[in-house]
Amino acid sequence: MILALDAMGGDNAPQAVVDGALLALESLKKDVTIWLFGDEEQIKNCLAGKTYPADRLVIKPASEVITCDEAPAAAVRRKKNSSMVLAAKAVADREADCFISAGSTGAVLSCGTLIIRRIKDVQRPALSPLIPNLQGGHTMIIDAGANVDCKPLYLVQFAQMGSAYMELVEGVKEPAVGLLNNGEEAEKGNELTKETYPLLQALEGIQFAGNCEARELMSGDFDVVVTDGFAGNVLLKSTEGTAKAITSMLKTELMGSIRGTIGGAIAKPAFAALKKKMDYTEVGGAPLLGVNGGVIKAHGSSNAKAFFNAIRQAQKLVEGGVTEKIAAAVQAGKTVSAEEKIG
Amino acid sequence: MILALDAMGGDNAPQAVVDGALLALESLKKDVTIWLFGDEEQIKNCLAGKTYPADRLVIKPASEVITCDEAPAAAVRRKKNSSMVLAAKAVADREADCFISAGSTGAVLSCGTLIIRRIKDVQRPALSPLIPNLQGGHTMIIDAGANVDCKPLYLVQFAQMGSAYMELVEGVKEPAVGLLNNGEEAEKGNELTKETYPLLQALEGIQFAGNCEARELMSGDFDVVVTDGFAGNVLLKSTEGTAKAITSMLKTELMGSIRGTIGGAIAKPAFAALKKKMDYTEVGGAPLLGVNGGVIKAHGSSNAKAFFNAIRQAQKLVEGGVTEKIAAAVQAGKTVSAEEKIG
Repeated sequence: MILALDAMGGDNAPQAVVDGALLALESLKKDVTIWLFGDEEQIKNCLAGKTYPADRLVIKPASEVITCDEAPAAAVRRKKNSSMVLAAKAVADREADCFISAGSTGAVLSCGTLIIRRIKDVQRPALSPLIPNLQGGHTMIIDAGANVDCKPLYLVQFAQMGSAYMELVEGVKEPAVGLLNNGEEAEKGNELTKETYPLLQALEGIQFAGNCEARELMSGDFDVVVTDGFAGNVLLKSTEGTAKAITSMLKTELMGSIRGTIGGAIAKPAFAALKKKMDYTEVGGAPLLGVNGGVIKAHGSSNAKAFFNAIRQAQKLVEGGVTEKIAAAVQAGKTVSAEEKIG
Repeated sequence: MILALDAMGGDNAPQAVVDGALLALESLKKDVTIWLFGDEEQIKNCLAGKTYPADRLVIKPASEVITCDEAPAAAVRRKKNSSMVLAAKAVADREADCFISAGSTGAVLSCGTLIIRRIKDVQRPALSPLIPNLQGGHTMIIDAGANVDCKPLYLVQFAQMGSAYMELVEGVKEPAVGLLNNGEEAEKGNELTKETYPLLQALEGIQFAGNCEARELMSGDFDVVVTDGFAGNVLLKSTEGTAKAITSMLKTELMGSIRGTIGGAIAKPAFAALKKKMDYTEVGGAPLLGVNGGVIKAHGSSNAKAFFNAIRQAQKLVEGGVTEKIAAAVQAGKTVSAEEKIG
C-alpha cells in the first residue's frame, strides 16, 4: 500500500508531516510505503540524523505549495506542481492508495473532485469528520461542508457512504444512521429533511435510526449523522467552539480563586484525560468520501501524532476497501432506491 | 403593566410558575401586575399560606391545558379555554402586555402567529434564545426554529428585530449582527446566505459585522446571530448538547479517581460558578419577536427562578418598547431596503 502525503500542508509542515510519517513507519505494518510530496531540501532537512527504512519513505519533489489564502479550485488548476496536487494525482493515477493533506480544506476538496474525481453515480463527495462521543466511540458528521446546498438523493448517498466507512474503518456493526433535524418526530424538518426521511426509511443496506437532534450528536446513539453541508458545518464548528468555550470558562473560574487553582492542580490527570478524549489529533482526519480513492483531510494544526493517526486511518480505509464498498452500495442503491423509490 | 402567565405550562407547573410570580412581585416595580391563567383550585393550592399583594396577582380561570404531545396549531385552534390560549388572547386583546409560557414550543409559536399575530409587514416571527458568551453577556440566535425554510428578506428582518431587542432589553449599544455562515469570507455560503449577505451590508439601522462561523457563537464578538430556523436550531441544540456532554465527560473523569474526586471537591465553587454562567434559568426565556405584543417562551424545565427571570425579562421588553421599535424598523427597512434594494 502506498500513501501519498502532502508534506507541505498544515501549520507545522513539513516537520510534523515527516515526524508523523516516521512514527507510522515504525509502528504500522511493513506493507505501508509513504510518499512525501514537497520541497526536497526541506524534507531532507527534516529527516536529517534520523534512521528510517529508506525503501518505505520516498521523497517526491514538488516545486509549488498551495496556501490557505488562495482561491481553492483556481489554485488546484494552476499549481500543477504543488505538493497537494501531485499527491492527489498519484491517487488519481492509481499509483498511490490514499492522499493525506492538512492544507486548505477547499483545495483538498477540489483535489478530490477535480483530480481524483467522483465514484461513478455518486452525486457529491462529502467531507466526513468524526466526533468523540459519550460511549467512547466516534460519530461521523456527513456532510460537514463540502456541499452547502443539497438534494435528498445526496443525503441518501451520504448515509450509504458514512455507513460503509464506520463499518469498515471503525468496526461498527450495522452503524446507526440519523438524519440531522430540528426535532425527533418523523414529520419534523425543512423541505430537504422532510423529503429525505422516507427515502432513508426505505433504503436497504443501512440502519436508519430516525431523526437526530443536534443535542444528540455526542450521545453515541448515532454512528452517522447525515446532513447538508451547511447545517453539518454549523454542527461541527458549534461542537468545537462550545467545547473550547466551556473549557476556557472553566479555566477562568479555576484560576480565579486559590481553592480553584489547588483543586484544579490536584484533579489535573482528570482534565488531561478529558482533553485526550476530545483531542482531534487522536482521531486522524476527516475522510472525503465518494471519490475514486482515499482522501483524508487532516486538521490544519496537526502535529506529528495527528499525522501518525491520519496515516493509520488511511491504512484502515484502504485495507477495508471503503471506496469499493461505497461504489457497490451506491450502485445497489441506484437500482433499488433511486429508480424505484427516489424515481 | 400586565403580564399574562400560562400557569399550567412546563414540567414544574403550576407550582414553579406561581413561585416565580411571587418572587417577581416581591422584587420588581410596583406597576407590574401578574395574571395567572390556569386551574383555579390548583393555583390557589400553590398560593396557600403565602402572603402577596392580592391586587397585583390575579387568577384567571382556564379549564383546559395544552400538552406537549398534541399537534400544536390544532391544539391552539381547538382548546380555546386553555391556559395558554387565554393568556395569549389577553395580549392579542391589548389587556395584557406580555405573554409568558413554558409549555410546548410549537404551541407557543402558534399562539404568537395565530392569536397575537404578526406585526404589519413582518414576514415571519422568530424564536430568539440568548446564549451566555465569553464576554459575560448574551448572544442572540435568531431564528432558532420557528421558520425552517427561509428567504433572504426574513433574515434581514431577523437582523432588525434582534438588534432592537438587544439594544432595548440587554442595553447593548449598536449590537454587532453576524450572519451564520460556513466561513468568514464574504463569498462563502449557501444560496440563502449568499443572497442575504449584501442585503445586510446595505441595511441601515443595524451594525452588520459580517459572517459568523458557528464556532464564534460564544466568543462575544457578535450580539445577534442571524440564521434560518433550521441551522439556528442546530446551533442552539448543539451548543446545549456539547456543554452537557463536556460536563458529563469531565464528571466521569473526576469521579473515576481519588485525586479527581478530591480535586473536584476542592474546586467545587469554580464548577458552581461555571454552572451558573451556563444556566438557562438566569437568562429567562426566548422571546418570540415580530408579533404584536410580548411573547416569551420559557424553558420547559423552568423552576421558580427561571420564571422570575422570564418575568423580569418581560418587564424590560415591555418597558423598552421592543414591539414598537421592531414595527418602526421593519417599516423603515421596507421603504429603504425592501423596495429599493431587496425589491
